Amino acid sequence: MLENWNKPQRPEETELEERLKAAREKLARQQMKIKEHGLPVLVLFEGWGTAGKGSVLGKIIRNIDPRFFKVAAMDIPTEEEKRKPFLYRYFVKIPEKGKFMFLDSGWMDEVTQDCLKGKLKERDYKTKIESIKRFERQLTDNGYLVMKFFFQISQKEQKKRIDALKKDKNTSWRVSEKDDWQNKNYEKCLEVFDRYLNDTNAPADPWYVIDAKNKKWAELQVLEALTSGIDTALKNSEMAVPLLQNVFPLEKIEKLSEVSLEKSIPEEEYRKELRELQQKLGELHNKLYRKKVPVIIGYEGWDAAGKGGNIKRLTEALDPRGFEVHPIASPEPHEKARHYLWRFWNRLPKTGHIAIFDRTWYGRVMVERLEGFCSENEWQRAYNEINEFEKELSDWGAVIVKFWVQIDKDTQLARFTDRQNTPEKQWKITEEDWRNRKKWDQYELAVNEMLQKTNTSYAPWHILESNDKKYARIKALKIVIEAIEEALR
Amino acid sequence: MLENWNKPQRPEETELEERLKAAREKLARQQMKIKEHGLPVLVLFEGWGTAGKGSVLGKIIRNIDPRFFKVAAMDIPTEEEKRKPFLYRYFVKIPEKGKFMFLDSGWMDEVTQDCLKGKLKERDYKTKIESIKRFERQLTDNGYLVMKFFFQISQKEQKKRIDALKKDKNTSWRVSEKDDWQNKNYEKCLEVFDRYLNDTNAPADPWYVIDAKNKKWAELQVLEALTSGIDTALKNSEMAVPLLQNVFPLEKIEKLSEVSLEKSIPEEEYRKELRELQQKLGELHNKLYRKKVPVIIGYEGWDAAGKGGNIKRLTEALDPRGFEVHPIASPEPHEKARHYLWRFWNRLPKTGHIAIFDRTWYGRVMVERLEGFCSENEWQRAYNEINEFEKELSDWGAVIVKFWVQIDKDTQLARFTDRQNTPEKQWKITEEDWRNRKKWDQYELAVNEMLQKTNTSYAPWHILESNDKKYARIKALKIVIEAIEEALR
Repeated sequence: MLENWNKPQRPEETELEERLKAAREKLARQQMKIKEHGLPVLVLFEGWGTAGKGSVLGKIIRNIDPRFFKVAAMDIPTEEEKRKPFLYRYFVKIPEKGKFMFLDSGWMDEVTQDCLKGKLKERDYKTKIESIKRFERQLTDNGYLVMKFFFQISQKEQKKRIDALKKDKNTSWRVSEKDDWQNKNYEKCLEVFDRYLNDTNAPADPWYVIDAKNKKWAELQVLEALTSGIDTALKNSEMAVPLLQNVFPLEKIEKLSEVSLEKSIPEEEYRKELRELQQKLGELHNKLYRKKVPVIIGYEGWDAAGKGGNIKRLTEALDPRGFEVHPIASPEPHEKARHYLWRFWNRLPKTGHIAIFDRTWYGRVMVERLEGFCSENEWQRAYNEINEFEKELSDWGAVIVKFWVQIDKDTQLARFTDRQNTPEKQWKITEEDWRNRKKWDQYELAVNEMLQKTNTSYAPWHILESNDKKYARIKALKIVIEAIEEALR
Repeated sequence: MLENWNKPQRPEETELEERLKAAREKLARQQMKIKEHGLPVLVLFEGWGTAGKGSVLGKIIRNIDPRFFKVAAMDIPTEEEKRKPFLYRYFVKIPEKGKFMFLDSGWMDEVTQDCLKGKLKERDYKTKIESIKRFERQLTDNGYLVMKFFFQISQKEQKKRIDALKKDKNTSWRVSEKDDWQNKNYEKCLEVFDRYLNDTNAPADPWYVIDAKNKKWAELQVLEALTSGIDTALKNSEMAVPLLQNVFPLEKIEKLSEVSLEKSIPEEEYRKELRELQQKLGELHNKLYRKKVPVIIGYEGWDAAGKGGNIKRLTEALDPRGFEVHPIASPEPHEKARHYLWRFWNRLPKTGHIAIFDRTWYGRVMVERLEGFCSENEWQRAYNEINEFEKELSDWGAVIVKFWVQIDKDTQLARFTDRQNTPEKQWKITEEDWRNRKKWDQYELAVNEMLQKTNTSYAPWHILESNDKKYARIKALKIVIEAIEEALR
């Protein structure tokens, strides 16, 4: 895209001014429609050092009410961010519905820098490109407008700017080592940038290469592309998306009806095993911490299946500084206003830490599916989106364990009745539980489909037979221990 | 996609039968909705020899009314097809709105065969991949559902099938040399296929790799993907598409208001020049024919600007066996039912021939734009689609000359009045001409935008000042001659 680049024709000064005025006004008008339609807009500014990204960005946002946009300058990752998956710091910054997020360089800059510094092997580059394509595709599939601008200047022009900035004591600090290095290695950089642009140039979120020699002209190019992109996106609010074929390794898993719930454990054996396993898990937690392996454990299951007690037996064994339990209820307004995986990206553990989710992102293909909180196309494609999400975590090095806590209908009824009749347990039972129980069969269908379609080898499901809660606890401990030992090997 | 391919899980026999029945019924129901919504569906079957593409295709179409689908087995191109651009024989086969077209192997097969035979240099491979991506993107952008299936079997399985077919005299003819060759060079083929699949795997028309070991199971995979794709496409009838940035070399061109219409030529000089130039053009036509260079000449211009007479002066010089004039009126129903460029693909000349278009594909961004025959998003993206179309022709080796025949408003009025008042010219003037004249200013804006956005170096516009028709004719002849001489050099 950069090699053999066909520079757009800069109009005459008067025409430029007219079009600039029109485009600014258009953006100002569009912000209200964006609000109204709940369109989230992510704008990425990438390009050469000294190309004027920041200054154009500053001009663009003057047309937008400050309540409707945020700007983030993404520098090199902090130590904290380095302990999260590569895309974490970008994913958490995605805008809410109806709002803009402007990023002053982002994941392109990070990846191409790593390439240029020789930090990224060819294979790792390709893996990152795949991650990025999935990330961007998930955003556009989920209704985000993603606008990507690359600010282009020639080597000569960059040199001129660097020299001019350096001459003046008041501006010389603005020339970074990176800018200098880029200019000296312009051809090499161009090649890496060009490859990246080609590799990530998708029809739904194409690159716009901006001729950045003149600031006003650059501003106009950005404004015209941005407002045209907004026009298009505003028309597509109810778009469906083709379902992609699964490309991840899926393992066979039994259907719920095939799970035998007879299993139980004698009290004596339970106590002994519990003590030993918790001891073991505690030791492993220490090793995890030192080896910086992140662990993600997700719990799903029927109401009153015994998730809480099960989780408790895990956490009792863990150092409280190294784990967190995330109870997942219905999303809050600011969460609902974003990609449904956002609130989970936001709750990822650091390396060496354990995150336990009491209910998970699988709500998308269970409650959200059955209660009609999302469209059929949305939950249908969620299987793949979730597999991609977990692949991202697995590539990062995370141990992923997913539990389905299984009981039968009679056991649930007995436990509900017990809760209802025991004053200190009444808070645990709500009208909603009874309503969900009526949809048992529909849920069972949805759960079976979910298990089949997301039981990947890198993030497998485990069914915990929990008619006997104690049996289920021991089984969970064993599975977690085995998964961690496997990862430490 | 093929290397490390994760084979989908084949269900148990009873489940398979149930799902097969459901999917067949679903497709049968969908055909009516497809008709109703005017959805065109292009289904591509690719894959290994003996993988059973044909037999599964045969099963699929049993669920569809024969009036609603066509099947084409694309073999190696005929001599006639070889004299057209690479994509010609596929483009002309795209289905009408509301209908299916099934292709038993297509452009993938052609490109990968050429690769395997060493006929395609790396650079040419990349060019073809770009062409294919544009072709497929233009189809999906214009409302086509494009479903691409690759039938996968292992080397062992293929060997088994080939041997079984050969054993029986009644079936041995079905094993082609290509099948044998593929099996012996399985790894090499796999690599080429895999690369192609990755290179052309777009979110809007992704590949589905079909586990083709068992026929019923293969049928089910195809049916489920196809019916799901149809579901999605039916929801997206009014989708807008992001506008892509121009990537083609654009040349500056004057606005109509800047064109001086004073130019004229004395009668004597006209006669002399005409004779000489026509003589010259006639000779060049001969050379073109022998060198097999195709020429495409497009005329656009104001009503009564003198297009007809201008074209006549060209054709007078040409051997009638080597050219065709295509007068372009509003599209017929079967043309309107397809991609708007389809009727032009259908009228492309063979190599060595000249095609003259009296009005062209630029109707999209003039009359269709101004009369609201297409949506704003459609004509906005047409500039790029047209540049892509002409790039395709240019890459094929065509000389492309585009004329805008320019007159001023007064001249048009004088010619209209003359036509109205001269009985033998009255057929040339209609109510529509007068209506269009009222929209002169709007047209002028649209024409200026068109000229700016489609004046590529490989398919440039030329403005013919035609207040003096004779001047315009001489100029046209000179331009055509020069363009051809340039191509023959």
